[in-house]
Amino acid sequence: MRIALPLAALGLAAAFAAHAGDGRIDYDHQAQWQSAHDMAQSPIDIVTHDTVAARDDEPQALVFTHTHAPMEAVDNGHAVEVETHATDATIRGRHFALTQFHFHAESEHTIDGRHYPLEGHYVFKAQDGRLAVVGVMYQVGKANPQAQAVLDSLAHKENAPHEVDIDALLPAQRGYYHYLGSLTTPPLTENVEWYVLPAPVTMSKKQIEAFLAHYRHNNRNVQPLNGRPLVHDEG
Amino acid sequence: MRIALPLAALGLAAAFAAHAGDGRIDYDHQAQWQSAHDMAQSPIDIVTHDTVAARDDEPQALVFTHTHAPMEAVDNGHAVEVETHATDATIRGRHFALTQFHFHAESEHTIDGRHYPLEGHYVFKAQDGRLAVVGVMYQVGKANPQAQAVLDSLAHKENAPHEVDIDALLPAQRGYYHYLGSLTTPPLTENVEWYVLPAPVTMSKKQIEAFLAHYRHNNRNVQPLNGRPLVHDEG
Repeated sequence: MRIALPLAALGLAAAFAAHAGDGRIDYDHQAQWQSAHDMAQSPIDIVTHDTVAARDDEPQALVFTHTHAPMEAVDNGHAVEVETHATDATIRGRHFALTQFHFHAESEHTIDGRHYPLEGHYVFKAQDGRLAVVGVMYQVGKANPQAQAVLDSLAHKENAPHEVDIDALLPAQRGYYHYLGSLTTPPLTENVEWYVLPAPVTMSKKQIEAFLAHYRHNNRNVQPLNGRPLVHDEG
Repeated sequence: MRIALPLAALGLAAAFAAHAGDGRIDYDHQAQWQSAHDMAQSPIDIVTHDTVAARDDEPQALVFTHTHAPMEAVDNGHAVEVETHATDATIRGRHFALTQFHFHAESEHTIDGRHYPLEGHYVFKAQDGRLAVVGVMYQVGKANPQAQAVLDSLAHKENAPHEVDIDALLPAQRGYYHYLGSLTTPPLTENVEWYVLPAPVTMSKKQIEAFLAHYRHNNRNVQPLNGRPLVHDEG
């Protein structure tokens, strides 16, 4: 692989400047090669007027199947997390399986600078290890029975359900903002496809407060886009 | 995003151990968060008996279209590189465009420990910035007219062709080994889908020597797999 083009492709102008020099690469001293990192981090502020439309000649949809499955909600020490394999997804033509989902407060992504009180991260993994995370915004409104199921499981309530149907935790409108980013907690690994759904889903005020009683500040600050394309699909 | 699962998903057991501790994350001192890197590097040795079969319920093919286009071969200071957009590709259901291709000697990837004299890297980019590189092995055999076109362009020969058809530079058999890796030159960025085609393509001894006259040691050493899945598609 050569240097110049992939860097430009990733929009890493700063890192590129550090390496462009005379272009020579010393293959006899490979241990001294330096890595450029931390240029493609998450979360970001989604500036909705500065996006590119998704290509219309390839599959763009997020398709969720088998959305109903056993689950257990836990407090993992830094987030409320639901252990479940409650769905498979075909994401832009490729197959991913849900590994877990969890909640950040307030939202980690912002949309035109605006936070939501809660953001759910649905973490999917492909056969090759690729991670894709679907981010869902929650706001105060009508109570959400599946959010209640999560809260009841978390509280070990008698008769707490042991199953979840994530359909009601996702918005009906499946349009998204897509970009390449990172984990939002250490080790902040940059190998993550992000799909942030801007259509919010409601929970009651009481339900959102029940989540905030566990964590009300487990959101990473927004990170610079550094020229990464932000792709918008209308859904 | 939480730590444990994505790390496990990427097979980053060593990095995981460094962070699992008490699991707490200090959101008030985010600047001190550490990144784990350099666990998913390229090239690798492809151990053919230790692969997983590609899923049969999703598109796996590498489909190349519009393979004939203008080109210019150059010596970029560390590799022979061909500037061209000679093909588009649908790679496992998603669209990528060729940005350039170049050659390493000897091959960077090895297959069961074996190097080939030359490896071509066909660098593709998707709309979201995702890079996919198709690696092709070259060995001594029948002369290759398209390799000759590249060499003639490189030597600024009179009547050197200004077009290339990469079809003859790719093997007819499109089976591949797929894994997630990195650029093989600094900045070694880890956001690259690799597709290494094990069916070699021939060039004449004289043609391969003409490439080696430019560079005969511009291959990075193989890197540890660190538990990454290596997916095999029969093509």
